[in-house]
Amino acid sequence: MSAHLQAALAANPTLHPSLRSWLACANEPGCDFPIQNLPFGVFAPADGAPRVGVAIGNLVLDLAALQAAGLLSVPGLEAGVFAQASLNAFIGLGPQVWRALRSQLSALLAQDTPTLRDDAALRAQALHAQNAVRMLLPVEIPGYTDFYSSKEHATNVGCMFRDPKNALLPNWLEIPIGYNGRASSVVVSGTPIHRPMGQIKGPTMERPVLAPCGKLDFELETGFIIGRATALGDAVPLARAEEHIFGMVLLNDWSARDIQAWEYVPLGPFNAKTFGTTISPWVVTMEALEPFRVMQPQQEPQPLAYLHDGAAHGFDIALEVDLQPGYGAGHTICRTNFKHMYWSMAQQLTHHTVSGCNLKVGDLMGSGTISGPDKDAFGSLLELTWNGANPLRWGQGDGVIERKFLEDGDTLIMRGWCDAGAFRIGFGECSGQVLPVK
Amino acid sequence: MSAHLQAALAANPTLHPSLRSWLACANEPGCDFPIQNLPFGVFAPADGAPRVGVAIGNLVLDLAALQAAGLLSVPGLEAGVFAQASLNAFIGLGPQVWRALRSQLSALLAQDTPTLRDDAALRAQALHAQNAVRMLLPVEIPGYTDFYSSKEHATNVGCMFRDPKNALLPNWLEIPIGYNGRASSVVVSGTPIHRPMGQIKGPTMERPVLAPCGKLDFELETGFIIGRATALGDAVPLARAEEHIFGMVLLNDWSARDIQAWEYVPLGPFNAKTFGTTISPWVVTMEALEPFRVMQPQQEPQPLAYLHDGAAHGFDIALEVDLQPGYGAGHTICRTNFKHMYWSMAQQLTHHTVSGCNLKVGDLMGSGTISGPDKDAFGSLLELTWNGANPLRWGQGDGVIERKFLEDGDTLIMRGWCDAGAFRIGFGECSGQVLPVK
Repeated sequence: MSAHLQAALAANPTLHPSLRSWLACANEPGCDFPIQNLPFGVFAPADGAPRVGVAIGNLVLDLAALQAAGLLSVPGLEAGVFAQASLNAFIGLGPQVWRALRSQLSALLAQDTPTLRDDAALRAQALHAQNAVRMLLPVEIPGYTDFYSSKEHATNVGCMFRDPKNALLPNWLEIPIGYNGRASSVVVSGTPIHRPMGQIKGPTMERPVLAPCGKLDFELETGFIIGRATALGDAVPLARAEEHIFGMVLLNDWSARDIQAWEYVPLGPFNAKTFGTTISPWVVTMEALEPFRVMQPQQEPQPLAYLHDGAAHGFDIALEVDLQPGYGAGHTICRTNFKHMYWSMAQQLTHHTVSGCNLKVGDLMGSGTISGPDKDAFGSLLELTWNGANPLRWGQGDGVIERKFLEDGDTLIMRGWCDAGAFRIGFGECSGQVLPVK
Repeated sequence: MSAHLQAALAANPTLHPSLRSWLACANEPGCDFPIQNLPFGVFAPADGAPRVGVAIGNLVLDLAALQAAGLLSVPGLEAGVFAQASLNAFIGLGPQVWRALRSQLSALLAQDTPTLRDDAALRAQALHAQNAVRMLLPVEIPGYTDFYSSKEHATNVGCMFRDPKNALLPNWLEIPIGYNGRASSVVVSGTPIHRPMGQIKGPTMERPVLAPCGKLDFELETGFIIGRATALGDAVPLARAEEHIFGMVLLNDWSARDIQAWEYVPLGPFNAKTFGTTISPWVVTMEALEPFRVMQPQQEPQPLAYLHDGAAHGFDIALEVDLQPGYGAGHTICRTNFKHMYWSMAQQLTHHTVSGCNLKVGDLMGSGTISGPDKDAFGSLLELTWNGANPLRWGQGDGVIERKFLEDGDTLIMRGWCDAGAFRIGFGECSGQVLPVK
């Protein structure tokens, strides 16, 4: 562990590596949700209405129950804010409330604090096994924007479909390119996705046909959730952009490559993307991610002044993708890191608002496919198999699995975490199974 | 008036040309809101909270007040559904409730019905002058999609920026091309729009600059409001598409042409559009528009089976655009008609859902710029001035006004109506003034 990371962890008492919880499951090595993480989500217990919770070890801490029991005394924390089916009301209370609550939850779960530890009745009310509850979409999403900020991904796509010598389009190095996505079809991890129908036109066909997608793909992304709204006409300067971010999730931007190829000129992808986007259920706060801040890759040419401040806006988040076929062995098909991203979340947000576009609490902004420099670090099957030319193969003998694109029954599982040596700030899973055309 | 229109009007008792209201202002020739129209909106009186109203003559009928007074006895009409800041809850009650309410309001306002006519105290409570109330955004918009469905517009744009001999892109005649817009910045008529800043790169510039938009434009569109939700994975067949539409508005898709030119490849327009979209406050119901149904233009090649049924999905809606400078004379710069649209609303909606994308109540779908065949029927300054090459000029002597694109202080006003001879189903105004960069 670097001295920088060590200092950064010690700078926030809720992130100190020596912190331990009285919940043994939270102290296990490799646990995604140690006491240092405390990500927020929305869950429904088997017998109850949706409410807000925090992941700790393999449990969920029920914040509605804690608040009802009078254990949360944060100034500005309105009554009933956790007895809701989304985080939006809580997020809307602002960063001071988020931080104060996080600090209080950290204290409540710390090994020496008896309040909840020694109250069996309250524990039974306030702690649920994660595998006994249903996780719901954590936020109501007023707007979803997807960016295109990995230089490796944009270069790979440009090489495949345009000119390898001029793979990056002229605007790519100047603009954190983004487009509006479809918010209605953003679903939580675990929701199956039906293979979409769409217009497809092969190179030798005179006219398109309506057919099931034959090139169904995933895109490995992260997403960030807007925590502070802006008014129409207001631009957010780069130095203040991160103040508008509540936290991050993993995101699978399911993509129908054959539908996309035919429809996307000139207004961008539409049906190729709007059939579904999956996010992970736990929103990891920017406070928990803060120690993992790193410089993003060198930007050449230096971006225009409104997009440049020389500060460290990148984050070191390890990412992995597993493909689990309907039958047969699963396989890790991609290992990469969020730190490779050319354009930062701060730059994306600043560019999004430079024309005056207003943000709303709960807005979701996708990073764009996160591809790294190595061939096994590409964040889509399009790149991993070079549009099907080099299928992935794993397993042995009769059990060999080969994939160009996703097949019905395949489950795609994304994982992400920040490595702090003694513990990790994990994102949990973002998964979804492909079902046949509905 | 055609025999067809006459028969269509007589087919619905609320649209009969002989209907008159006891409110004289609703019977004036040229009135947008006669008793046959009854469009829905959301308004706030000077001294009260937002609530749902219906336009009649130059007045607003307060449905919350009528319901509180016990005058609305429609089965399924929930209490409090009009005491809200959006139409969504009412729309969500479904077509049977919309129709029954419309019929009841028609009867209540008909000249021989004394209930409200002869009750001065109730009239004072339930009727407000339109110019004394503030109109609000009529719906909370979960998703905004914008289409590109005028063949004349797509051809004009293709001639200007691509190849005049192949002006239409290959997919245009097969797909009602659309893209996701930004819902957060949709505002109601009357809201001023600040000129956006953005990245602009002229043809001789080595790198872009951040600068105020120099080619600010409008796009004349209509929008339709989704009245019935669908589930993820469900496609809506063409024959049932119109059942999902509640009504229509006028829409100004403000566009920054210089920002758009630099940013839009390959993922479509973003900052060039997200700084603001204006809609008219009154949602004209599909029931009121039904008699004005016409065949859309001949489609060649015949669309794929899922987009073709030979039925009349077009609507005859006259449209006009006025440009009123900050000082000097205003001018009508465009006269066109919605009936010219190549792709219908039904086709747009069916294509939107063919991949399984789900719809939500309140979703807004823009038609795309409505350009007609004549040069004064083009629905944008880009086309009217041919990208500034042929400026518009009006007025005389010192009062001559010249416009290539919109200038600060300009107000853009759209109007639309269906002509029934004895009356019109009007949309009112969709207007907005351009303010300098904020």
